[in-house]
Order: sequence, then C-alpha cells, then structure tokens
Amino acid sequence: MYQDYDRIIMGIDPGTNVMGYGVLGIKGKKPVMIVMGVIKLGKIEGHYLRLRRIYERVSGLVAEYLPDEMALEAPFFGKNVQSMLKLGRAQGVAMAAALSRDVPIAEYAPLSIKQAITGNGGASKEQVANMLKRLLDIPEEKMPALLDATDALAVALTHFYETGKPKLPKGPKSWEQFIAQNPDKIVKR
Amino acid sequence: MYQDYDRIIMGIDPGTNVMGYGVLGIKGKKPVMIVMGVIKLGKIEGHYLRLRRIYERVSGLVAEYLPDEMALEAPFFGKNVQSMLKLGRAQGVAMAAALSRDVPIAEYAPLSIKQAITGNGGASKEQVANMLKRLLDIPEEKMPALLDATDALAVALTHFYETGKPKLPKGPKSWEQFIAQNPDKIVKR
Repeated sequence: MYQDYDRIIMGIDPGTNVMGYGVLGIKGKKPVMIVMGVIKLGKIEGHYLRLRRIYERVSGLVAEYLPDEMALEAPFFGKNVQSMLKLGRAQGVAMAAALSRDVPIAEYAPLSIKQAITGNGGASKEQVANMLKRLLDIPEEKMPALLDATDALAVALTHFYETGKPKLPKGPKSWEQFIAQNPDKIVKR
Repeated sequence: MYQDYDRIIMGIDPGTNVMGYGVLGIKGKKPVMIVMGVIKLGKIEGHYLRLRRIYERVSGLVAEYLPDEMALEAPFFGKNVQSMLKLGRAQGVAMAAALSRDVPIAEYAPLSIKQAITGNGGASKEQVANMLKRLLDIPEEKMPALLDATDALAVALTHFYETGKPKLPKGPKSWEQFIAQNPDKIVKR
C-alpha cells in the first residue's frame, strides 16, 4: 500500500514523556498524510524502560512504513545539561531505529519548522496544527488530541519542503573561472 | 567459549570521538577480562555516520559476547547543553544496541567508578588502568594504548562489585512492625 508513494518521510518529535510521529507520503509533488500519533511514555516507570519503549515503537514504525528518510525535531538548547542528556538519549534510541535500517536522518530546529509551515518562527503549536490541516487537507476527525503528533508531521513536511527546494548551481568563483566554464559567452573580436 | 562464564558484563565508555568497551567474564566470584578495546570515531565525518558506527559496533559486540548486563560510564554534568545533547545521543544509540536484545543497563558516574576501583574518587585514568591490571591480572602486552578501553573495563568491574554486594534485608520500620514480623521473638509472660 505504501508502494503507491514515490517517497515516504517519517517525522519524529522526540520527548521523554510523549514522543510524536507522523508519516508523510509523497505522490509526484503532492505530500499526503499517511498516519500520525504519539507514543506515551509518562506511565512507564524507569528511564531505561522508556528508552526501550521508544526503540521498540520507532523500530516498529520504521518496519511498517519503510520510510526513505527520517526527520527529527531537535531543539539545540535546553533548560539544563541534565534535561539535554535525557533528550539526547531519547533522540539517540529513536535514531538507532532508523540507522539500523540505513534510513538517513535529518533534523530541524523548532523555529525552522514553524517558519517552514506557517511562515512565522514564533507560531504556536495550534497554529502549526491548523496550517498542517489546511496544507495536507486532513479531515477534522483525523486531527490528534496531542499536538506532539502534529509537531512530528510538521517536521516531516518541513523536510519535504527543504529537500524539494531547487538547488542553485554553484556559480563561478572568479572571472577566470566564468570564462573557462562559458567559452561560448565570450565575444571574440 | 563464553559459556564458560557464569555471567558476562559489558562495560561501555561512550564518547563522541572515541568509545571504549571492555568485557568481563565472571567465573564463580572471580572476574576475568575477556576483551577490551576502542571504537575510533574521530575520522568519521558527519554526526549521523558516527552514531551509526557506534550502533553497528556496539550491536556487533553484544551479538558476539552476549553480555548479561551492560554498564555505562555516564557523566551527569558536562561543559554545556550542546555537548550533553551529543553525548546523550552517543549513549542512546549504544543503549539501543543493548535494549534491542533485552540486555539490562546500569550506569555509574566517573567518580563512583574511580572510587570503586582505586578507593579514590579523584584517581587519574592511569591509576585506574594500573589498578585494573593488578586486580584482573592483565599481562602488560594486553594493556591498551588508549585509556578509554580501561575506563570501559573499569565500569564493568564497578558493576560487578556493586551488584555483588550482599543486600541487607529491609528492617522493620517500627516496633509494631518488628513485633508483627517476629512473633517468635516476643517473650510472653
């Protein structure tokens, strides 16, 4: 069923209490939401059990949807070193689930995601969710209760936008190079 | 060959440039070094490629030595949030390699490891290495050039010491409880 898509992007919003995921399928140039949801970790007692759950669930999602790429929401600054270490571990086990199947990873800062989806780096989670609903034509009943899911789908869509940008050819660095590269543009007198 | 041991403990000293590992086999009450070494990451360009290498190598070690437990050296404080995030990711992918095979994880702070091995929480890496050499009777030619390897073996040995400690039974919290739990010790007149 997922073979219908040209490309599958899995978005992950890693957290130590709730981890969001969203899978985007690309048909031609059109992105379509395949699934989104959350992995709840709050009730799991014990740091390692939470990490194990993340690994198992993300591995399961990767095995089910066979994404071509994984995109992570990755804050680069946190409250303190302790919380960053925990977040790093949660990201690490999620990444391992992708790396173990050779799925390339990309990451985006929260501000870039908000900017890419809504045009405003200071947008709220609700604004991001509403914009996603419109951009991907998601019916109301499929919108999730927890915004970690839409955040994850947002990073997948950001990755699609970022990688779909036409790459400008690298220009010549000097006149000499320009002339060498474009002999036909030189008017010989 | 590793079936000769009653218990195998794998020690990991995770780092983003060099990751050390050390495998300890326990025969009865005697710890024996099985192997130690390092995974060099410095020459690998790219953060994800490094994480992938860590995952692959640690998975390979887990598959080869089938440890009963994994013990990690885990600093709880770092220079800054950025370095802690990177360290957390390196720890996370190494942990995923253990978690994916149901190997339980324990972690120890550097100070506790130095304390457990040398009796001095402020010991140098060299002092830890020398003490390990004596404690485990490691021949000179098997001592590694990089002390990340001995650090990793040290955390495995620390885990052995910590888990080998006799556990004191939990005492009663009050006289009422003591009496309820020990009716035979009450002299009835």
